[in-house]
Amino acid sequence: MTRLGDLFDQRLEVVNLGLESFASTLRQVGAPTVHVDWTPPLEVESNARGVVRANSERIAAANARALARILAGMPQLVGMGLARDVIPGLTEDTLLHAGPPISWERMCGPMRGAVVGALLYEGRSRTQQEAERLAASGTIRFAPCHEHAAVGPMAGVVSPSMPVFIVKNAEFGNLAFATMNEGLGKVLRYGAFGEDVVRRLHWMADVLYPVLARALARLGSMDLKNVIAQALHMGDEVHNRNRAATSLFFRLVAPAIARTSSGEDAGSVLEFIHSNDHFFLNLSMAASKATLDAARGIADSSVAVVMARNGTDFGVQLAGTGDAWFTGPAEVPDALYFPGFSKADANPDIGDSAITETNGLGGFAIAASPAIVQFVGGGPADAIRYTTQMYEITAGENTTYQIPGLDFRGTPTGIDVVKVVEKAVLPFIDTGVAHKEPGIGQVGAGVLNAPAQPFVRAYEGLARVLQGGAR
Amino acid sequence: MTRLGDLFDQRLEVVNLGLESFASTLRQVGAPTVHVDWTPPLEVESNARGVVRANSERIAAANARALARILAGMPQLVGMGLARDVIPGLTEDTLLHAGPPISWERMCGPMRGAVVGALLYEGRSRTQQEAERLAASGTIRFAPCHEHAAVGPMAGVVSPSMPVFIVKNAEFGNLAFATMNEGLGKVLRYGAFGEDVVRRLHWMADVLYPVLARALARLGSMDLKNVIAQALHMGDEVHNRNRAATSLFFRLVAPAIARTSSGEDAGSVLEFIHSNDHFFLNLSMAASKATLDAARGIADSSVAVVMARNGTDFGVQLAGTGDAWFTGPAEVPDALYFPGFSKADANPDIGDSAITETNGLGGFAIAASPAIVQFVGGGPADAIRYTTQMYEITAGENTTYQIPGLDFRGTPTGIDVVKVVEKAVLPFIDTGVAHKEPGIGQVGAGVLNAPAQPFVRAYEGLARVLQGGAR
Repeated sequence: MTRLGDLFDQRLEVVNLGLESFASTLRQVGAPTVHVDWTPPLEVESNARGVVRANSERIAAANARALARILAGMPQLVGMGLARDVIPGLTEDTLLHAGPPISWERMCGPMRGAVVGALLYEGRSRTQQEAERLAASGTIRFAPCHEHAAVGPMAGVVSPSMPVFIVKNAEFGNLAFATMNEGLGKVLRYGAFGEDVVRRLHWMADVLYPVLARALARLGSMDLKNVIAQALHMGDEVHNRNRAATSLFFRLVAPAIARTSSGEDAGSVLEFIHSNDHFFLNLSMAASKATLDAARGIADSSVAVVMARNGTDFGVQLAGTGDAWFTGPAEVPDALYFPGFSKADANPDIGDSAITETNGLGGFAIAASPAIVQFVGGGPADAIRYTTQMYEITAGENTTYQIPGLDFRGTPTGIDVVKVVEKAVLPFIDTGVAHKEPGIGQVGAGVLNAPAQPFVRAYEGLARVLQGGAR
Repeated sequence: MTRLGDLFDQRLEVVNLGLESFASTLRQVGAPTVHVDWTPPLEVESNARGVVRANSERIAAANARALARILAGMPQLVGMGLARDVIPGLTEDTLLHAGPPISWERMCGPMRGAVVGALLYEGRSRTQQEAERLAASGTIRFAPCHEHAAVGPMAGVVSPSMPVFIVKNAEFGNLAFATMNEGLGKVLRYGAFGEDVVRRLHWMADVLYPVLARALARLGSMDLKNVIAQALHMGDEVHNRNRAATSLFFRLVAPAIARTSSGEDAGSVLEFIHSNDHFFLNLSMAASKATLDAARGIADSSVAVVMARNGTDFGVQLAGTGDAWFTGPAEVPDALYFPGFSKADANPDIGDSAITETNGLGGFAIAASPAIVQFVGGGPADAIRYTTQMYEITAGENTTYQIPGLDFRGTPTGIDVVKVVEKAVLPFIDTGVAHKEPGIGQVGAGVLNAPAQPFVRAYEGLARVLQGGAR
């Protein structure tokens, strides 16, 4: 029998490209081995690579412009309003949802549950069955939040009577919208629609909204970029961990709340926000949306302005490809599941919250928040490794958002789909996990890499635009 | 000419003990050199070392008991009261101050300034000159906060009419007291005593105190150990950085404040706390004091239960040496000075706040708070190095307070004066810097190592107790 080690008796040196495990095996049998970290690029349509490579300088210049606009963004919370009054194009029959476009028929369980809950909340239906009939009837127009300057976590359903935050990119003037975070447990965004869920939504509209709106009116505006920058110095990545950002938001609004509402209303609103460390998530998302929308429509740019999931498909939009969505199947994340649940219960990845990663936050900033990696069995070194890898696929580094543990280096910002494909490094995303059946709610939280297909398609889509244009 | 390198032509190997710079020099000239990190121990009285070494097992067992009591501490904020009503032994003529005992004659400028301010605040004097005469007259009894179960940052002056927090160590029942933090700028604790300073102290007694006391009464109690543990995960070391801990405190009290005070009072109190990221410092100190006082009076223990400075002397108390103070001159810290000030303006180190380091926080937990080291020109690697070195001089590691960047390792806890002397590694302390003249206030913030002399004297003092006892 020839043992592997025998092959290397003559000080033969092996250069290993690609899978580190090959190099480890060779070293174990005594072969001097140099490992070169290299992965074959993702496969794309035969002519797409040539077109992209031929236009590489043009793309790089466009990406620099896109990055500059992202870095210059100044997201500010400027007020609140009802969705029907402030979100452009939101008719009485429209329900917004997370991720790329999807029909009722293809919607996953938790998104269907959230649609049912929203129709109950709106008074359009009295029972689950009525709501499902209405949803399937063709009367309701389903549209992505992202196509209405909005973002929603998990199912991301926004209906006309829901109050929303109004975030303005003070540098470029564009607006973004997001609902208020309901807290954890049985909540609409995870597909629950019971009486308690609908009752909470009414309390949020009747008490939380006017109290917060008055306080914000008194404050004038709130600099969300500053809050996020501080929170990154305080252990948040403002996607799965928002304790610091929620605390800073709370400190900013509480004095104004106390001055503009009764003791009972102020007390109950402050208790509600205090009870939910994720309260800031929706603001982090709206701030990211307002920031990235300013980089839309930059010809030739391969920088992503959206990553979003509807629980069935994972969708990407690029600065240089207009309103086109590039999609592929969403995957089930690695997660820490709540007692009594397992990966078999989990819905595929869902929600617009990957807008934070698209903006260099969340999984891209996880080195600022090692507690999250610990949550799924890792440690600070893993967190640093994940963030460090993301610099390989981004157009640059943030000039405001920093990671203390990386010597205050700026977060990796501006996902470049060309780099994603050429390096076969997929964006790292923090996420919550919904039960796959409607009506149940959250079953865990975890991390995952984005699926390859949407990025391959986006790369090919950009190639088509590059080829099709007068170039 | 014989060059240094020529001496090492014959593959002579050099073992270098001590100063790393020698090893570097040898390496530069090509001498194979092994560097062993070693520093000669601090010099102590000739027979003290023998006594301590002969009792090393006894000391180790006592230190284990002291550490166990420190780790078991459960500091809770249980309410507030006026100093005269709640601090034991605080007569109408008593003024408490930071650090070891000191007379008016030996007091530094900022402590004299704070005494003047306190006498103006109490209405005992109408002018600086009157106050200085009264202070020098012998009527006023000056006593260390630490001898009255209290702690005070910087000058640390506590007078009878000042409201104080009451912190209870729920595990052992002992209490600790601290005033409320005044904010930054011209404040009493930095030696300022102008009209604005005294007016603020009155507002704190007349508005802040009753509002906070009512809110705390409604809450029942607040688990300070939990707040500190969370804050360490959020970039604080709860000495020079308290932004997270202040935010968490704010979140806990704000709803109760809104429910128990008028909108105007609640608003002004919340604005005051929000405006001062150091508000939690005094609670961090009182929590540390309550924790460490439970380890007093453990025979044979070389664990420090107090490090404190009065701006003239640096004092240490040990678990095993009763009420004895071991002192030496306080030193001027390395600091970032405010514009217009330099080290020449700085008073030597002052304040009871080193109780946080004594409790494994502050400089001992600085790896949790790299922003502080950055402040004086360092980075995260320096912060990790400082904290890592402190494990060499502590009895153990905290079981609740963790450092995320060190894989959530417990903070180095229980300063062992024997290790300090034997290894010549001095405690690392974060600090604020007061102007050396009375009436001016803060001029900077920085870091320093404690002076050696108090630790040498404490070591010798323990040796005397070990020798003097029936052993």
